[in-house]
Amino acid sequence: MQFRPVKEQLEILMRGVTDIVPQDELEKKLQKSYDTGVPLRIKMGVDPTAPDVHFGHTVVMRKLRQFQDLGHTVVLIVGDYTAQIGDPSGRNKARPRLTHEQVLENAKEYQEQFFKVVRRDQVEIHYNGEWFSKLPFSKVTELMGQFTVAQMLEREDFHNRYAANTPISLHEFMYPMMQGYDSVAIQSDVELGGTDQKFNVLRGRDLQLFEGMEPQIGLFMPILLGTDGKVKMSKSIGNYVGLNEPADVMYHKIYSLSDSIVENWFELLTNIPLEEVKQMMADVASGKMNPNEAKHRLAIDIVTQYYGAEAAEAAAAKEREIHSGNAIPSDAAECSVDAGSYGALDLLVNIKAFASKGEARRMVQNGGVKIGGEKLADPQAQIEIKGGDQLVVQVGKRKFYKVNF
Amino acid sequence: MQFRPVKEQLEILMRGVTDIVPQDELEKKLQKSYDTGVPLRIKMGVDPTAPDVHFGHTVVMRKLRQFQDLGHTVVLIVGDYTAQIGDPSGRNKARPRLTHEQVLENAKEYQEQFFKVVRRDQVEIHYNGEWFSKLPFSKVTELMGQFTVAQMLEREDFHNRYAANTPISLHEFMYPMMQGYDSVAIQSDVELGGTDQKFNVLRGRDLQLFEGMEPQIGLFMPILLGTDGKVKMSKSIGNYVGLNEPADVMYHKIYSLSDSIVENWFELLTNIPLEEVKQMMADVASGKMNPNEAKHRLAIDIVTQYYGAEAAEAAAAKEREIHSGNAIPSDAAECSVDAGSYGALDLLVNIKAFASKGEARRMVQNGGVKIGGEKLADPQAQIEIKGGDQLVVQVGKRKFYKVNF
Repeated sequence: MQFRPVKEQLEILMRGVTDIVPQDELEKKLQKSYDTGVPLRIKMGVDPTAPDVHFGHTVVMRKLRQFQDLGHTVVLIVGDYTAQIGDPSGRNKARPRLTHEQVLENAKEYQEQFFKVVRRDQVEIHYNGEWFSKLPFSKVTELMGQFTVAQMLEREDFHNRYAANTPISLHEFMYPMMQGYDSVAIQSDVELGGTDQKFNVLRGRDLQLFEGMEPQIGLFMPILLGTDGKVKMSKSIGNYVGLNEPADVMYHKIYSLSDSIVENWFELLTNIPLEEVKQMMADVASGKMNPNEAKHRLAIDIVTQYYGAEAAEAAAAKEREIHSGNAIPSDAAECSVDAGSYGALDLLVNIKAFASKGEARRMVQNGGVKIGGEKLADPQAQIEIKGGDQLVVQVGKRKFYKVNF
Repeated sequence: MQFRPVKEQLEILMRGVTDIVPQDELEKKLQKSYDTGVPLRIKMGVDPTAPDVHFGHTVVMRKLRQFQDLGHTVVLIVGDYTAQIGDPSGRNKARPRLTHEQVLENAKEYQEQFFKVVRRDQVEIHYNGEWFSKLPFSKVTELMGQFTVAQMLEREDFHNRYAANTPISLHEFMYPMMQGYDSVAIQSDVELGGTDQKFNVLRGRDLQLFEGMEPQIGLFMPILLGTDGKVKMSKSIGNYVGLNEPADVMYHKIYSLSDSIVENWFELLTNIPLEEVKQMMADVASGKMNPNEAKHRLAIDIVTQYYGAEAAEAAAAKEREIHSGNAIPSDAAECSVDAGSYGALDLLVNIKAFASKGEARRMVQNGGVKIGGEKLADPQAQIEIKGGDQLVVQVGKRKFYKVNF
């Protein structure tokens, strides 16, 4: 196979990269691949401990896609065995253990989302149970013998837990060995990961060398900050954009992004040339461009990747409609109540818009609740609910409830 | 089966014991066995890392024999898998790893010696490869998950190595799990060991509880001091008595024992009632009995266990003959030289009695060398060696060389 010149490949591949270990070997590997016509094997391991994929995960997936577009082979390792342990990297306590069935179920959902970013051709999928289920005990002890306790306890996460007397289970010390042995099993040339994966990826090099193979390179991508621009994107914190969210919700979340990380998201989540991005940011800084215009462009680019250009433009239009009160977003909560006559505050608590009548009263008094498009002025009002209709309740600017009855 | 009353059994079993964990459970286990007629399963694990067995090892073996004599079943676990790791207990560095073939070879020699103490009936022998070779990887991680890093590093040996920056390989952390899982596999009621085995034996309890079994009891025997009465018996230190040594050598080594541990050896290596031993020691202390008389009795008892009463008496007689110069011991070194004429010092170095001529000269000048029963007075003497004969060279009181030519 004929590849693009190494220099061109490097230019594309280096975008957004935090670190390559060892620095000089990627160019050599690309050169060898170019000379021999053999694609590189790009490893990515994933433990499907939770099925939801968000933009934070796509930073690495998009890099895989770039490798694919340059003709290389992606090897996705679904960690059905590693997930049963749980990667201790960056954690301050042991992960809950999942059953094999849960993991396989999550893996199915994960792959559906994975293939929204990564191409279905030029990909190999392996479950690491393929080799771990057959790994003889004597091999396990041999592989474990390649690492030392001190090496593990020098890792910041283990070190901190040990120092804080937070228990570290011995099976967690097996995790780096397992991730490393995955690299042996699939003979990877490059392993991708977030910066928190450096330790594990280097253990893969150790084990490949131990088995007499040419060791892989670690290519590390930054951790994406969430929509708040402050901390790592995470579902539990709520600062995330999920790959399965509808186009208008996705558009809205990007359009509402913290100013401080707009440039970073352009770099990590789009292919817009970096010079163009820099110019935009300069224009925003000088007042030549409205910051919302930059976010609109970012949102359109990203939503287009997942839903196409037409849906992206429709999402932008809907965002404007919602702002002017003429539409409700597609992530509005739906709920049902029986027909009857309700005190307004009772109804608001009933549909879970508020946790208590006190909270609901304060918001109504502040003018923040609309029912059927009308501002609710009197907290004592009675709301008549008849059968076979739908009522829209709006709380604040963008929380909507579709109440069916 | 009908057992002896629990109280009688306990009286025999408690002799020489250092510790039982937990204290109160042995009596309960014995009572249950007595009530149900089911023998207890007494576990002893051995990693045949070296084939030589000495008296230090027999302290635990003799306890096994007592259990057998009381009707219980001994389960010997030959650690063909654990030996490949090597027990880190009490060590200050990792053990060298043995191949499976070396281990099996050692195991054969070990068993020949084991059965000089332990009866061949009422015994089950298992190699732990029986279960470890079939242990699925997922079970390994599950078992490892029952222990914590802190628990391992609280162990004195690991703690000291970690503090001293002496590498601890991760496979060494697997050892306690393996020894523990042996107890699960054979469903042991009691595990015997030296006091240095306490940690590992308690891990067996942990894993048995984890698997929903009634946990074993740990019964710990003291570490036997060597013939010097100072440090643990050990082949490398040279203060040992091997089970394969000839009767006269065994007798001699016991007869030359340090006074300070004669009573301890009576307790741990014979069945002579402890009151009788106490009386003997009192008689020695008061001058009523010659200390050599007590050692003679100890030597006769022990040599009788391995070679019978007649051989023991013959060994005692030979010891007297050697002292009076009328016999040479059966562990005399044999060597060969070519016929010819030798300078005395050259000959002594040649047969490896001394490392250098200087050393040999000093001993000759001190009157410590006999050749052919005659004291060698002149270091410059020439020794004529003719074919087809044997010459006995004696160095000091009891080092003999049979020189063949």
